[in-house]
Amino acid sequence: MTTSTCQELRQQSDEEIAAFINSFDTVLTDCDGVLWFGLNPILGSSDVINLFRELGKKVYYVTNNSTKHRRDFLKKCIDLKFGGTQDEVLGTAYLAAWYLKSRNFEGKVYMIGESGLAQELDDVGIEHIGLGPDLPPKEPFSAHVAVDIVKELDPDVNCVIVAFDFNISYPKIIKAINYLEKPGVIFLASNTDERFPMSPYALPGTGSIVASVTVPAERDPVILGKPNTFFFEAVRQRCPNVEPQRTLMIGDRANTDILLGKNCNLKTLQVGGGVHKLSDIRRWEKSACPKENRLVADYYLDSLGDLLPLMQRVRHLLK
Amino acid sequence: MTTSTCQELRQQSDEEIAAFINSFDTVLTDCDGVLWFGLNPILGSSDVINLFRELGKKVYYVTNNSTKHRRDFLKKCIDLKFGGTQDEVLGTAYLAAWYLKSRNFEGKVYMIGESGLAQELDDVGIEHIGLGPDLPPKEPFSAHVAVDIVKELDPDVNCVIVAFDFNISYPKIIKAINYLEKPGVIFLASNTDERFPMSPYALPGTGSIVASVTVPAERDPVILGKPNTFFFEAVRQRCPNVEPQRTLMIGDRANTDILLGKNCNLKTLQVGGGVHKLSDIRRWEKSACPKENRLVADYYLDSLGDLLPLMQRVRHLLK
Repeated sequence: MTTSTCQELRQQSDEEIAAFINSFDTVLTDCDGVLWFGLNPILGSSDVINLFRELGKKVYYVTNNSTKHRRDFLKKCIDLKFGGTQDEVLGTAYLAAWYLKSRNFEGKVYMIGESGLAQELDDVGIEHIGLGPDLPPKEPFSAHVAVDIVKELDPDVNCVIVAFDFNISYPKIIKAINYLEKPGVIFLASNTDERFPMSPYALPGTGSIVASVTVPAERDPVILGKPNTFFFEAVRQRCPNVEPQRTLMIGDRANTDILLGKNCNLKTLQVGGGVHKLSDIRRWEKSACPKENRLVADYYLDSLGDLLPLMQRVRHLLK
Repeated sequence: MTTSTCQELRQQSDEEIAAFINSFDTVLTDCDGVLWFGLNPILGSSDVINLFRELGKKVYYVTNNSTKHRRDFLKKCIDLKFGGTQDEVLGTAYLAAWYLKSRNFEGKVYMIGESGLAQELDDVGIEHIGLGPDLPPKEPFSAHVAVDIVKELDPDVNCVIVAFDFNISYPKIIKAINYLEKPGVIFLASNTDERFPMSPYALPGTGSIVASVTVPAERDPVILGKPNTFFFEAVRQRCPNVEPQRTLMIGDRANTDILLGKNCNLKTLQVGGGVHKLSDIRRWEKSACPKENRLVADYYLDSLGDLLPLMQRVRHLLK
């Protein structure tokens, strides 16, 4: 489904709002920027998620954040009153493990990433190396140091995964690209988000780490995260009967969240306050560029919490 | 001058070779991959450079390597028997200092780079911060740690320079992109070379470091190195009468060295053995893409050293 105009839900009639809420059974929701900012829940958003569940809708958390295992992510969801089960949490660390396991991967993974990724790989019994900071070299950097690093590569590595890694370093990049010299080595990346939503500060996103490897690797990775369709494939594996037309994708970032929805033919709800604004949507609506037009969500709200009073108002019309 | 066919010098007649050698007074030569590989000089290349000088030609070393001050680069040239003076050495560290000084820059530079860049900035009296590894944070990384880093930014920074830095780290990227949030802050990058020429190993080039900052900065830097024309502008400043048509650019990388030559209307000589091969050139000649066509050098040799016997053979025809 591609639409080129976005409806502001607050300006819709009671009947239209109820028709919207009644039109989906499954919700995929982005987290940071929609449910919370960092450690702070966004006002009213947990009430909306819980009301969805009361209405019988299935909710999946869909995040490009690769740093946490699902159980830790779920803990945050529960601590911040969003609820859920581990099966309803989908992050790119899990997707990486799921991707390899479902393809009967053999060998080791060289990972640039945090402990959540390591734990997801552990869960499916895939060996990995690379977690944590590399030891600094014993002498100042030179081509000689680089060659020593390359000479110690593990011949069993058949996959390189690049995700967010606070300890990203030049030696890690050397290792990754030299593993990738073998054409058969699988190359996965968590996502290419440029920044984390943390206004007024600029916090480099996983796209920064991924670019630092992709440029010298001179190969393109399979990008697991939004807007790639893998997340919805993982949902389908859980619920084979899920209908795209009766599924809603909620997000604050058009080029990941909303585009994931578009790529899977889902309904889409963009919320403001995070990365993209209503003014961006209005500009994309008018754009002659099909790529920009495709970023236009079906519905818009300033904040997911704003849906609560609307749903309460039309409660008598909800199924 | 744009040509779409490349002449193999070894297949030319004595008269054609002599006409080629007599057609230029000034030589700009790339270094790594043309004169040496790492610490090892390429056979015959120093003899060719010295013969150029004997014939009265002016030679400039033109390198995207940003790690060395010109005096250290010159030392390598002299140690490996290429000769020259500091005034004949042009690297991107020098270009960065030259760029800022010639624009009467005021304030401090935040640099991601090595000591050579710091020393070139010192030479022109420009204050800089950022050299060397950042201290690791006192606690595991979190958004809180990132905010602490941002809060310590220096308000006097008016320029960010990104060059090769073995100590590239996430905290450095945080600093760079938060300085760049001020629209007036100048953003310079050494170059975007994907790799250093070090076959059979893959060594990440400055393009890796630059991409890690450019992606989250969401701004494009001024790229100082080849194929930008700044190098030839620096040569013109030294020799205002230098004629592009009587200048030869020698390099092993088409998208930097040869394109610099094309961008400045110089003659171009591609040597093999480094990044690009004769087979690449033959492919680009046939390409329908003007961008690929533009990568075709005027002349080709497997190695710069191969020019020595040719020049000796036609010595009686040289002016």
